[in-house]
Amino acid sequence: MAAPWAHRYAQRTKTAKSSIIRELLKITQRPEVISFAGGLPAPEVFPVERFQEACQRVLHTQAAAALQYGPTEGYRPLREYIVAHMARYGILASVDNVLITSGSQQALDLIAKLLINRGDRILVECPTYLGALQAFDLMGAEYVTVPTDEHGIQTCNMEHALRSGPKFMYILPNFQNPGGVTLSHSRREQLVILSDKYGIPIIEDDPYGQLRYEGEHNSPLVVLDRTNLTRDKDYKLGNVIYLSTFSKVLAPGLRVAWIVAPPDVIAKLVQIKQSTDLHTSMFTQMVVYEAARDGFIDEHVKIIRATYKERRDAMLQALNDYFPPEVSWTKPNGGLFLWVTMPPDVDSSKLLESALRQDVAFVPGDPFFPNGDEGSHMRLNFSNAKPEAIREGIRRLSIAVAHELEHRTAEVALV
Amino acid sequence: MAAPWAHRYAQRTKTAKSSIIRELLKITQRPEVISFAGGLPAPEVFPVERFQEACQRVLHTQAAAALQYGPTEGYRPLREYIVAHMARYGILASVDNVLITSGSQQALDLIAKLLINRGDRILVECPTYLGALQAFDLMGAEYVTVPTDEHGIQTCNMEHALRSGPKFMYILPNFQNPGGVTLSHSRREQLVILSDKYGIPIIEDDPYGQLRYEGEHNSPLVVLDRTNLTRDKDYKLGNVIYLSTFSKVLAPGLRVAWIVAPPDVIAKLVQIKQSTDLHTSMFTQMVVYEAARDGFIDEHVKIIRATYKERRDAMLQALNDYFPPEVSWTKPNGGLFLWVTMPPDVDSSKLLESALRQDVAFVPGDPFFPNGDEGSHMRLNFSNAKPEAIREGIRRLSIAVAHELEHRTAEVALV
Repeated sequence: MAAPWAHRYAQRTKTAKSSIIRELLKITQRPEVISFAGGLPAPEVFPVERFQEACQRVLHTQAAAALQYGPTEGYRPLREYIVAHMARYGILASVDNVLITSGSQQALDLIAKLLINRGDRILVECPTYLGALQAFDLMGAEYVTVPTDEHGIQTCNMEHALRSGPKFMYILPNFQNPGGVTLSHSRREQLVILSDKYGIPIIEDDPYGQLRYEGEHNSPLVVLDRTNLTRDKDYKLGNVIYLSTFSKVLAPGLRVAWIVAPPDVIAKLVQIKQSTDLHTSMFTQMVVYEAARDGFIDEHVKIIRATYKERRDAMLQALNDYFPPEVSWTKPNGGLFLWVTMPPDVDSSKLLESALRQDVAFVPGDPFFPNGDEGSHMRLNFSNAKPEAIREGIRRLSIAVAHELEHRTAEVALV
Repeated sequence: MAAPWAHRYAQRTKTAKSSIIRELLKITQRPEVISFAGGLPAPEVFPVERFQEACQRVLHTQAAAALQYGPTEGYRPLREYIVAHMARYGILASVDNVLITSGSQQALDLIAKLLINRGDRILVECPTYLGALQAFDLMGAEYVTVPTDEHGIQTCNMEHALRSGPKFMYILPNFQNPGGVTLSHSRREQLVILSDKYGIPIIEDDPYGQLRYEGEHNSPLVVLDRTNLTRDKDYKLGNVIYLSTFSKVLAPGLRVAWIVAPPDVIAKLVQIKQSTDLHTSMFTQMVVYEAARDGFIDEHVKIIRATYKERRDAMLQALNDYFPPEVSWTKPNGGLFLWVTMPPDVDSSKLLESALRQDVAFVPGDPFFPNGDEGSHMRLNFSNAKPEAIREGIRRLSIAVAHELEHRTAEVALV
C-alpha cells in the first residue's frame, strides 16, 4: 500500500526505472546460477592482504583524520596520487583538476546536476551504459543517439545529432559497456574536433582503460582535446570531463572514483557534491591511497589483466564452439563485457526466461538503448566467473538460444 | 577562466551556494585558531581500537563481500542492527523500512530528488540546518518558515504556513542544528496531528538524539505519528520519514547513516539511490556493523555524553563569565551546538572578521535562515574543543563582541 502522500513525488521519479541489472543480480544470487549479468570484478583478484595492511597503517597512524569529517574535494594525497597516475597515460592535470567521488556513479549524478535541465538532450552512443542513463534520467534528460560499430561511435554520422543541440556528449571510449568496443584513434581525433566546433563538451567515462588485454593503448579524449585546442592552449579551456575509478583496478566495494575537469568546473562540482554527501568517506579514501601507492596498482593490474584475458578467451572460444551461425558477438580487447547480436525477431526477454530455466543469466540489450532497441542483443560479463564456469554457462545459454531460435521459426512458420 | 561551455550549467547550479561553514573550516585549520565553527565530533572519543578490530574481522572473514559491489538497500545485518537499535527508542520498524545512506546529507539529497519539483515550497524551522537547505536548493526548493523558540518550532503559529501548501516539513526535533533547542512533547503531538490533518509529510532529522546530557528522552515524531494514526493502524501509512546516523555516535568519516520510511517510499528511494551512487561502501557498512554490534554503541555513547556535557558546561560557564548582558544564548540539553542572539544591529559578518583577528571562529547565523535573518546570531559548536580551549575561545570571542558592540554604539552616536 502506498503512503497517503505518494502523489507528492516529484516529476523526476516517474523516470526512475529500477535497474534491470540490479533486479537480476538478486535472482542470480542462487548458487547454481552461472551469471554473466552483473559487471562484477573477480573476487579472486581483490588484493585483500594489501587492504589489511592499508587499514592497519591508516588506523594506527592517522585515525583521527580517517574517522573525522573531511574536505569535499577529497583526501589531498589521494588526489596527488591520481595526478601522478594519470600523467603516465598522458593526462596532464594538477590537484585542482581532481575531485574524488563516491564511485563513478556519483560522478555521473554530479555532472547531471551540473548540466541537465528537464528536457535537455544528451548525445549518447547507442547502445550506452545503463547507469549513466539512470543518472541523467533523474534530472529529466532526453536523448539523441548515434550508432556504434566495432570502432566505436560513428563520428561520420553525428553532425545531424550535434546540430540538434545536445547539452553534452557521453562517451565510453575503451571497451565500452555494454558493447565491448573501443573507439579508434582517428574517430577520437574527429570527436574532439567536433566537440570544439559545436562547443559541446564531452564526458569521457573510462573505468576500464587499464584493463587492456591486447593491442595498443589509445590516447584518451581529454589528451587529444588539449592537443587540438589551437585557440587557447590553457588547460582550463578543455572541452572534456574525464572520469575514472579504482573499482576495476582495486575493488568496487570501497566506492572511490574521480573526476578530472577544468578548475572552475571542479569548483562547481565541489559545491554540488557538498550538498549531495558532504564528502566521500575519509577512511576509504585513505585506505585506497595506502593500497594504491608505491606502484602497487601497476603491478596488481597485471594479475587482473591475465585473469580477465583468460576468461575473455574462454568465453570467445565457448561462443565459437556452442553458438549457432545466426548469432554474432564483439571481440573486446579489454574490459569486462562482450555484446551478442541475435536475429532481430528473437525476444531477448523471453530468451532470459529460457536462460534462467537453464541456470544461466545475462542482461537483455533493451535497457542500454534510451530510445528503444531495434535489434535483439545480450550483454555478457566475462570477469566474474572462472573459465570452466564460463564454458558451462555458454553451453547452457546456447541451449536457451537454440530454443528461442526454434520457437521463433515455429512462430514464423505458423504465420 | 571559465570553461567555454560554462553557459551550459543547469538552472539549479545558480542556487548551489558554497557552504560558508565549509569555507570557514579551511580558514580555521590554522592551529592557533580555536574553532566553534564546524560540527565536528571530538576525535578523542573515536573508538579507534574498536575500528581496528572491526576492520580485521571484516577483511579476515568476509573480504570478498566487503570489497565487492553490494545491494543498494544496504548490508542486511546492518539494517537488522538498526531495526533492533531503534526499537529501544520505541521506533517499530522492519528491515524493509530501512535504507542505508552515505551519511545523512545523502538522505537529504535522495529525499529532495524524491519530492521536490522546481518551485515547490518546503516548510522549515527558522533557523534550520544549512546542509538541508543546500540539498533542497539543488532541486529548486522555495521555503516557508515557521519561527522557533526554546521549545522548538511554534506549532501554534504554523497553520498559515501549512495552508500555503508546502511539499513537506523538515524538522530537527532534538538539540536542533543550529538552535540547540528541543521540541517539547506537546508540540510534537500537535505536529503529527497537523501533518495528518493537512496530509503533509514530515522529514524528522535526528542525528543527535542519543546525545542527551540531561532531562528526559522525548518520543520521536515517527513514534507519535504511528500512535496518532487512527484511520489506519498500518505502519505503511506513516506520515514521517525518519533520519539518523552513525556519525555522532561512532565517527563521521565513514559516512554511514539511514532512512526509515514506509516500504513503498523506501523502494522509490532505493531506485533513486541506485542512480546516485549505486550503494554505500560495503566495506564501511560492514566495519560499522562490526563496531556497533553487541551493545558497543550504547556503552560508548556514555563516554561521548560525559565528554560533551563537560564541554557544554564549560561553554555556558564561559559565556556567563565573559559575555555582556545584551547578548543571550540557548542552553541545550544535548547535541553539539548552542545559539547566541545579539542585538539586531550587530553585523555578524563583521563580528566574524573581528573574531578571526582574535584567532577564534564561529558561524554567523544568516545562512540558517532561508529567507533572510532579521536578527543577529552566531552558532557555536562545543563538541570539538577541550574545556580549557573553549574557555579561552569564549574569552577571545567576548573581545570581538565587545568591539562590535562598541563600534555599533559609536555609529549610533554619530547618527
